[in-house]
Amino acid sequence: MDKSISDLRADFPILDQRVNDEPLVYLDNAATAQRPTPVLKQVLDFYQTDNANVHRGVHTLAERATADYEAARDRVQKFIHAKKREEVIFTKGCTDSLNLVAATYGEQNIQAGDEIVISIMEHHSNLIPWQQLALKKGATLKYIGLTKEGELDLADAAAKITDRTKIVAVTHASNVMGTVTPLKQLAKLAHQHGAIIVGDGAQAVPHMKVDVTELDVDFYAFSGHKMMSPTGIGVLYGKQALLEAIPPYQYGGEMIGTVTEQASTWAALPYKFEAGTQNIAGAVGLGAAIDYLTAIGMDQVEAHERVLVQTVLPQLLAIEGLTVYGPTDPAKHTGVISFNLGHLHPHDLATALDMEGVAVRAGHHCAQPLMNYLGLEASARASFYLYNTAADAEKLVSALKEAKEFFRIGTI
Amino acid sequence: MDKSISDLRADFPILDQRVNDEPLVYLDNAATAQRPTPVLKQVLDFYQTDNANVHRGVHTLAERATADYEAARDRVQKFIHAKKREEVIFTKGCTDSLNLVAATYGEQNIQAGDEIVISIMEHHSNLIPWQQLALKKGATLKYIGLTKEGELDLADAAAKITDRTKIVAVTHASNVMGTVTPLKQLAKLAHQHGAIIVGDGAQAVPHMKVDVTELDVDFYAFSGHKMMSPTGIGVLYGKQALLEAIPPYQYGGEMIGTVTEQASTWAALPYKFEAGTQNIAGAVGLGAAIDYLTAIGMDQVEAHERVLVQTVLPQLLAIEGLTVYGPTDPAKHTGVISFNLGHLHPHDLATALDMEGVAVRAGHHCAQPLMNYLGLEASARASFYLYNTAADAEKLVSALKEAKEFFRIGTI
Repeated sequence: MDKSISDLRADFPILDQRVNDEPLVYLDNAATAQRPTPVLKQVLDFYQTDNANVHRGVHTLAERATADYEAARDRVQKFIHAKKREEVIFTKGCTDSLNLVAATYGEQNIQAGDEIVISIMEHHSNLIPWQQLALKKGATLKYIGLTKEGELDLADAAAKITDRTKIVAVTHASNVMGTVTPLKQLAKLAHQHGAIIVGDGAQAVPHMKVDVTELDVDFYAFSGHKMMSPTGIGVLYGKQALLEAIPPYQYGGEMIGTVTEQASTWAALPYKFEAGTQNIAGAVGLGAAIDYLTAIGMDQVEAHERVLVQTVLPQLLAIEGLTVYGPTDPAKHTGVISFNLGHLHPHDLATALDMEGVAVRAGHHCAQPLMNYLGLEASARASFYLYNTAADAEKLVSALKEAKEFFRIGTI
Repeated sequence: MDKSISDLRADFPILDQRVNDEPLVYLDNAATAQRPTPVLKQVLDFYQTDNANVHRGVHTLAERATADYEAARDRVQKFIHAKKREEVIFTKGCTDSLNLVAATYGEQNIQAGDEIVISIMEHHSNLIPWQQLALKKGATLKYIGLTKEGELDLADAAAKITDRTKIVAVTHASNVMGTVTPLKQLAKLAHQHGAIIVGDGAQAVPHMKVDVTELDVDFYAFSGHKMMSPTGIGVLYGKQALLEAIPPYQYGGEMIGTVTEQASTWAALPYKFEAGTQNIAGAVGLGAAIDYLTAIGMDQVEAHERVLVQTVLPQLLAIEGLTVYGPTDPAKHTGVISFNLGHLHPHDLATALDMEGVAVRAGHHCAQPLMNYLGLEASARASFYLYNTAADAEKLVSALKEAKEFFRIGTI
């Protein structure tokens, strides 16, 4: 991988620019990734060769567009190791996928007195849908806490998940701390108590090998834009029996069997959940992104990010006044690292880094309950991806040291 | 317009191809439009220059991406003449927009015994959400019928819309017959009875000047992909007071004020309705498509399509055995024409036309209750857009005549 990283970079012309007169170092990949030229080219080719609406057409372009769209579904199925292509639903994104599950399975199965268990490190998209469902139904929302090391506390999970639990919904990797959660063990725990488990894979699928069948998750959601596909496309994986048992989420074209004035029946999977014209070119782009990642190999992607974290994490921890949140063991980390520098507001820190060309995010990272749990208002967050280099990691460290000098953190 | 149409065509390389050894004549624009090079270029430029996640960032790319995204909202506001930019919500598409209204305003305001009035020519996306809402709430769903000419029957509308009516939801232009509906008069009628009106603009916004303020509609929905933008982006317009009064549709990042473990508050408009990462590049592309349409002028677009319909409609009506559904007056028509040829199944007809390079759609057009009302199983549908030429119209007629010969329609 290291040998070919310079070749990879050539696929990302956006990285080859200067920001504030400094070379851009893009470390905001947990928010969205960049798109390589082959992905953009495939989307462009689709629009300039095959573009038509899918399924309903009998003309040549419509047939080609349908084949392109369904081939993307096959790629997703293979990539996440789903048993059947019907278990892969295209959505607008991870948030859409999670809302779908809460509004269908949740509405159908949660009653007053039931319990929903999530973790304290959930992104708002895997938190508020369950919170609002619980409020509406008179159910209880419980939070699994963290160990001192910032990992999910399995003992606490075993205490919180009981026979009253109907749904367990947990992220596969924290968007704030980079913590990877023991999703397979949580699935086992949930199933022992007759609950289903929903996995939020937004920060996992782009960065590691994910096998939904091996994890034994009931639903699993992720976005395309964090794995180099176009914006506006995501996936909901669901076990076939569950997807068949729940009602549709949205109503419209393509998702019906027959419609009369006063009643309707629904189409078979996966179409029951794909009302209206989908993001066809987005799905094609997601398929292309999967091809791109597969050609490199997800083991390679994961290993590359780990090397970067192994390089940068000890250097960050060595900066006096800098606090890292979450695991400090690179082996328990994705490429996401959150930190604060003294009492400096992370927005000021991010602005200072931006002056050096280094793009990091600052804020609550759509995880306010976690921030509160950690006793924070906000943090800065650097997040790496396959196209980031050791030089990017070094630049983050040197820019942080410069910011520390500039703001005189720890020196007054 | 006619003078520059050959220049326009150069912006659509997809049209410059052969299908079944014949030059492609793309007449499936009511399903989805083609994308001009300037729109694709702007999307590509976004991905290769500014791409980042919006709003939450303090780094340069995030600021540029946010500016691009919000500039697209301004373009939409201006294009549909909304009073405020906060009244423009980006969605996944028209179906998503209509489901949003049914699941929020509908859920909140419809009770047992209430009535919802739609027209018999609605697309499933503006039919099933109301049908299912009515079934769930014990409300009544009523249908406005058609005149003999295939127009919306205003007298029937006046009879169906009463003080029991809470929501009127009507298409602005039929996706089957090309009929333009008197949306402004329907809005007045609805308001006289204290009901709100929802307009489905999927087949209107791409083809004619639409002024939501002048129409006085309460909600209005449309898709980007039918007006040359990328797939996966759409718009919901809503009057500010209504959007403020209804609950959010989806929960996640960006749409919150504050989130604690057991409660949340919502962001101001328009963000309250934009949970999670939106189709940022799709919005940028929609803005570019609006620029493209605006440079031509919507009056010109409408006039061009009318000339094509004026050319082709009399010729279709002159073919013995061919039946046209809907208005036969080109002045009362968009560029959508539905027809059948004798007892030939429209799928067979569409396949025969495809052999001549002519792409039309065949089926129920996601309007089964309308098909049933017209006594049909299905129809063939040709639909024109700004890049179609008089030669395209002639080719449709000659290909239909050839199909008639081939299948010996009306000759045996």
